[in-house]
Amino acid sequence: MKIGIYGYGNLGRGVEKAFEKNPDMELVGVFTRRDPASVKTVSGAPVYPAEKAEEFVGEIDVMILCGGSATDLPEMTPALAKNFNVVDSYDTHARIPEHFARVDAAAFRTGHTALISAGWDPGLFSLARLYMNAALPDGRDYTFWGRGVSQGHSDAIRRVPGVKDARQYTVPVAEALEAVREGKQPELSARQKHLRECYVVAEEGADRAAIEKAIREMPNYFADYDTTVTFISEEELKRDHWRLPHGGEVIRSGNTSEENGHVMTFGLKLDSNPEFTGSVLLACARAVGRMNTRGIFGCRTLFDVAPADLSMLSGEELRSKLL
Amino acid sequence: MKIGIYGYGNLGRGVEKAFEKNPDMELVGVFTRRDPASVKTVSGAPVYPAEKAEEFVGEIDVMILCGGSATDLPEMTPALAKNFNVVDSYDTHARIPEHFARVDAAAFRTGHTALISAGWDPGLFSLARLYMNAALPDGRDYTFWGRGVSQGHSDAIRRVPGVKDARQYTVPVAEALEAVREGKQPELSARQKHLRECYVVAEEGADRAAIEKAIREMPNYFADYDTTVTFISEEELKRDHWRLPHGGEVIRSGNTSEENGHVMTFGLKLDSNPEFTGSVLLACARAVGRMNTRGIFGCRTLFDVAPADLSMLSGEELRSKLL
Repeated sequence: MKIGIYGYGNLGRGVEKAFEKNPDMELVGVFTRRDPASVKTVSGAPVYPAEKAEEFVGEIDVMILCGGSATDLPEMTPALAKNFNVVDSYDTHARIPEHFARVDAAAFRTGHTALISAGWDPGLFSLARLYMNAALPDGRDYTFWGRGVSQGHSDAIRRVPGVKDARQYTVPVAEALEAVREGKQPELSARQKHLRECYVVAEEGADRAAIEKAIREMPNYFADYDTTVTFISEEELKRDHWRLPHGGEVIRSGNTSEENGHVMTFGLKLDSNPEFTGSVLLACARAVGRMNTRGIFGCRTLFDVAPADLSMLSGEELRSKLL
Repeated sequence: MKIGIYGYGNLGRGVEKAFEKNPDMELVGVFTRRDPASVKTVSGAPVYPAEKAEEFVGEIDVMILCGGSATDLPEMTPALAKNFNVVDSYDTHARIPEHFARVDAAAFRTGHTALISAGWDPGLFSLARLYMNAALPDGRDYTFWGRGVSQGHSDAIRRVPGVKDARQYTVPVAEALEAVREGKQPELSARQKHLRECYVVAEEGADRAAIEKAIREMPNYFADYDTTVTFISEEELKRDHWRLPHGGEVIRSGNTSEENGHVMTFGLKLDSNPEFTGSVLLACARAVGRMNTRGIFGCRTLFDVAPADLSMLSGEELRSKLL
């Protein structure tokens, strides 16, 4: 199956790495809005200007869109779905219905297949929530994230005056996680579920107390959480915080009868969020290509994808090896 | 959707309990090979003789088959699939391809849909293995079972001369589980993965040393494991071991590149194996009924079922609530 990568940041590079482990998939090229001459791919794959993508109609089975959810994907996915089968990792939960409708209209009219909100959350975590809810309709879900780097929160810190660079780790509160794993169903506030650890490189002569206050009191991002701020040097940041780990856990507990309760958990511990997400997106591209050849057009999510379509293995192999 | 339960042991009663939590599903009746007059259902659902099932063609959308894998289902599922859409929990891993082929032939020719090997292993654990393999193709899977009651092993102990009753718990070895969860990929023998705890009620005057030796040395069942045998009274068995808990954990760890490794886990802790399995089978029946109305005929497994088909919620609700 022939694949294009549209957008070449951390996630695009993550998708690129996944080709090594998926020998049935071929990377045709990377499309960028930057000057292609300035972009060097890790694998040596060719780089093309984004506006030339249309010339690859017929040569690319599925285009994997590696833009951001805030401003890129709401425009990019419906636009590209007119010419290609596409996969994106749109993750602005509140706006998924709107994004879905726009992408569906664009893809359906032109006989393309689009899969939105793929990755791990939304993505594998969403699947875990769905299977758990179907298996145990009377119960309660919890999703914990971390310990991992939140790019959005790191960016928010970088916008504070006097901050040169920053890394924010989201950390689940151990006691809350333990209680939920044991099948208790506590009512938890944002503060009771997650801590926020901030590692900050201040500019020379900056007012550190003011920076710390600005971070701790920032609405939405930090004000509702127990937040720690640790100032470190640029060297320490580069040496100790270069990875982009992440992960988390989906837990559902509930009852099938008064006397019998059950706990289901799905957890991820990821050294590299973009590499793992990229690997999931490539498996999703496989399913999208297959669904399109079967005449399934329009927008879908992982909820609509038969699991077997994600796999390199045949139905017979899956039944004998993994069932 | 109108459902029949075919076979009324622990699992059949588990399915029956699940109707309370799935208000879109209606139990038409229970079919038994025993004398219907001798069977009293928990919910008060009517009981019919198994041989009258054919009279319910057109009144039952999906029949859930609650027979055993050793002798019941190999005959039952292909036979019933000629008249009904069916779900079974066939779990003899080595013979799944053969069972699949026979059920597929029976169901396809008559325009029915059959889903075999549903439940949690095979079932939800199989799905976890498939998703994990697709997301992380370069890695290694482990499945641990327990702590939970193995009916097969309990039955094997009951066949030892001098044994009146018994309960066998399969227990994962804590150190092995911990190592795998941490992303190590140890080579583990059967003995290094699971312990077997046996609680035995001996007949009066029986030779306990002989019983213990017979259990510990039993090939396939116990000889390859560290096995403990504890003699208890009939009262203790009834008081402390009436539940049928089970569970376990599927773990896959692997790499997306040389420097980045990932660990994925899916775990279940179940107070009642038959109630939870029954609840999963009822969700599967929902999917089977839907697939049949769409003209999808023949045998399938959970690998072929779009997750959304298992859920009571609509596509819109799933996307806004669980994605």
